[in-house]
Amino acid sequence: MTGSTSDPTAVTHGDRLDHWVSSYATRARSMTASEIRSLFAVASRPEVVSLAGGMPFVQALQADDFADMVAALIRDRGAVALQYGSGQGDVRLREQISSEIMTPVGIAAHPDDVVVTTGSQMALDLVVRVFCDPGDVVLVEAPSYVGALGVFRAYECDIVHVAMDDEGLNPVALEEAIARVLASGRRPKLIYTIPSFHNPAGVTQGAQRRSEVLSVAKKHGILLLEDDPYGLLGFDGPYVDGSAPRAIRADDADGVVYLGSFSKTIASGLRVGWAVAPHGVREKLVLAAESAVLCPSNFSQLTVSQYLATQPWTEQIKIFRELYRERRDALIDSLAALMPEGTQWTVPQGGFYSWVTLPEGLDSRAMLPRAVAALVAYVPGTGFFVDGSGTNYLRLSYCYPEPERIREGVRRLAGVIEGELELLNTFGRTPNASNTKGSDDLVQTPPTNLL
Amino acid sequence: MTGSTSDPTAVTHGDRLDHWVSSYATRARSMTASEIRSLFAVASRPEVVSLAGGMPFVQALQADDFADMVAALIRDRGAVALQYGSGQGDVRLREQISSEIMTPVGIAAHPDDVVVTTGSQMALDLVVRVFCDPGDVVLVEAPSYVGALGVFRAYECDIVHVAMDDEGLNPVALEEAIARVLASGRRPKLIYTIPSFHNPAGVTQGAQRRSEVLSVAKKHGILLLEDDPYGLLGFDGPYVDGSAPRAIRADDADGVVYLGSFSKTIASGLRVGWAVAPHGVREKLVLAAESAVLCPSNFSQLTVSQYLATQPWTEQIKIFRELYRERRDALIDSLAALMPEGTQWTVPQGGFYSWVTLPEGLDSRAMLPRAVAALVAYVPGTGFFVDGSGTNYLRLSYCYPEPERIREGVRRLAGVIEGELELLNTFGRTPNASNTKGSDDLVQTPPTNLL
Repeated sequence: MTGSTSDPTAVTHGDRLDHWVSSYATRARSMTASEIRSLFAVASRPEVVSLAGGMPFVQALQADDFADMVAALIRDRGAVALQYGSGQGDVRLREQISSEIMTPVGIAAHPDDVVVTTGSQMALDLVVRVFCDPGDVVLVEAPSYVGALGVFRAYECDIVHVAMDDEGLNPVALEEAIARVLASGRRPKLIYTIPSFHNPAGVTQGAQRRSEVLSVAKKHGILLLEDDPYGLLGFDGPYVDGSAPRAIRADDADGVVYLGSFSKTIASGLRVGWAVAPHGVREKLVLAAESAVLCPSNFSQLTVSQYLATQPWTEQIKIFRELYRERRDALIDSLAALMPEGTQWTVPQGGFYSWVTLPEGLDSRAMLPRAVAALVAYVPGTGFFVDGSGTNYLRLSYCYPEPERIREGVRRLAGVIEGELELLNTFGRTPNASNTKGSDDLVQTPPTNLL
Repeated sequence: MTGSTSDPTAVTHGDRLDHWVSSYATRARSMTASEIRSLFAVASRPEVVSLAGGMPFVQALQADDFADMVAALIRDRGAVALQYGSGQGDVRLREQISSEIMTPVGIAAHPDDVVVTTGSQMALDLVVRVFCDPGDVVLVEAPSYVGALGVFRAYECDIVHVAMDDEGLNPVALEEAIARVLASGRRPKLIYTIPSFHNPAGVTQGAQRRSEVLSVAKKHGILLLEDDPYGLLGFDGPYVDGSAPRAIRADDADGVVYLGSFSKTIASGLRVGWAVAPHGVREKLVLAAESAVLCPSNFSQLTVSQYLATQPWTEQIKIFRELYRERRDALIDSLAALMPEGTQWTVPQGGFYSWVTLPEGLDSRAMLPRAVAALVAYVPGTGFFVDGSGTNYLRLSYCYPEPERIREGVRRLAGVIEGELELLNTFGRTPNASNTKGSDDLVQTPPTNLL
């Protein structure tokens, strides 16, 4: 209980003592850097094909038009764009979000129910801040988004995974998970779901499935947290014409908090996302936001607002969709052509990711150093679970590399998997596999190259 | 314990029921909107002279040059500026902060020890997130910054005020406060101080005072949190030539977390601030930041970095200093000319604020509606304390209105105070004064018009 330099419990970080280690809050225990980070630092070298990251391909934007637009904004409205704004976010942008951006997903919300945030990650943080005490149960898909698991851990939540199937979150499994939690004398605070083009699973809930999930949430009076960063980026199946899946929030304004983002439809570097929430919840979110950052950046917000008002943004989203469809095809086609028998993968109808199941006995985390040595990177499945499962899964992203690079990456990955299978057939196991059982050291850390 | 619509504890917010009221976290109890907010909404009308807000006068920037610079940035480095970045912040900006921006305050820090955040408010939030469990004691000046008190409350800290004098935080009072906390069987986690051009008190710690404060912190092994948004904005006394007070962090790299901001030296709308922290603490701050927002905006960060690299920023800060000095003079001169006997105020040598002590018996919060009716606004002293004290203080800011408006605002305020004194002399008390005793309802909420 002392932070003085004579503290005998002080520990080293690299070659330096941390004299404050005994002063940290309980929640800081979950804040430890993963060993795997250094591996991903290597994986960002240009010779490595990274199928790991979730960076949107912002190079597809018209940079000259964007530059001219921002310059005009500073000249015309610089005194506002460069000044503090309201904690809830710019009113014109909130109107645009309400009247234009959420129309394709079927949401009709009043601008007063929208809170603009520093990326939708911050909206997620604020929702958990408002709702979750340490030990509160949150229900999440198995697998779930790394960054959401990180937030739930940061607020010391008890994370309970719920099984998915080809249509995403399984309502029967959800009902069973709730029953188990209730039987333990507790009540879940939140159900967190990504219904459209799931990260990392690459699956999408159909209309009937969404209705069933909502029914379970409503029956038990549990708030549904709907995360929808990819909703406008469908390109296949029922979304081939660019139509977006109808949001769950469209059918229940009081039981759902909806999270949206401009990171994948305009540019992630602006850090502009939003939440739509029931009125009382919205009020709490704004107060929490003011405490966290005072207000979101007017510079970024007015840039987004101006972009929506003056640029052909629906055409730009169409360009993104075509680009990502082509890359998805490159991934799926080369997986089909090159992967050894026993490997399976999901075929996403939109978004950024495919979820791969390795042949029985392989361990994606143990395999990662060998993949990086073979100049290809992915995210091991264990990062998307908090319970140590996921060792025979991995996530592949196709959003950033050019199609030719994607094909080369899959070729390299197929070679690595074949090598692992040979080891398995010769020795009965692959090296280091036993070390990774129960590991969840990716979960604390959502570095941006793993989104 | 139910969030269903039949919940008998559901409460109204305006005309709408909040069905989730029983689901909120304990920390959300402090998230309640202040009644005084509606008054400040009125106070933002153009006919009201607001001496309440802390908005920098960004109109003094060269908007055309800024516009050209941002356009060139998007053209040349758009693929980076519009993309996700690292959770710790852009490396070039961190180098500039280390090698240029902190030189005037005497800090020599490695760029690796700098964490860039969405305004320094977020840095403050992250430090408290990393260090403070509910119930942990933090020592703050009396009065202290509204936004910091809001963060400490959001994390359910036990806030203990420490007396100030003409040189800011009083080290004898600090020692006594620590002794009282230790005697209660607890140990303070943080000492939060604004040593330069204090918000709201308008005072500055001299070199000897800083050394004494640091000695007390070190003696007890308590982390010192040094908040320095105004350090480069000195214009009077020892700072007349633009020299900045030496930061406490300059003399102790391991015992101090230093918070800096570009909000007052470039533009608040960019939302770029930073923390400098001991190595182990920095590591925790980055992990906490990634959980909170993934990464700060590259768009804003690269704009700041480009500004520092290509624009005459030291000249611009000189322009700001001259501007604020002129406005400070307008405030202080008109206070001297117009205020009734028994009114006192601090004379700031930099920054944005003067702290006014009303004549005995007056209540700044009870007086505020009458001031707004007389078309002048200020922040009542109660907002800067959590213990209900501060009723006979108020904060005046001179950063945003033109000098002529400042003089008119003081004239109106002097009239209001004279009216109060007449009521006091006639009736022995002013209306509503008793209602405000013990009120701290400003503290939860740092709306941006009260910075």
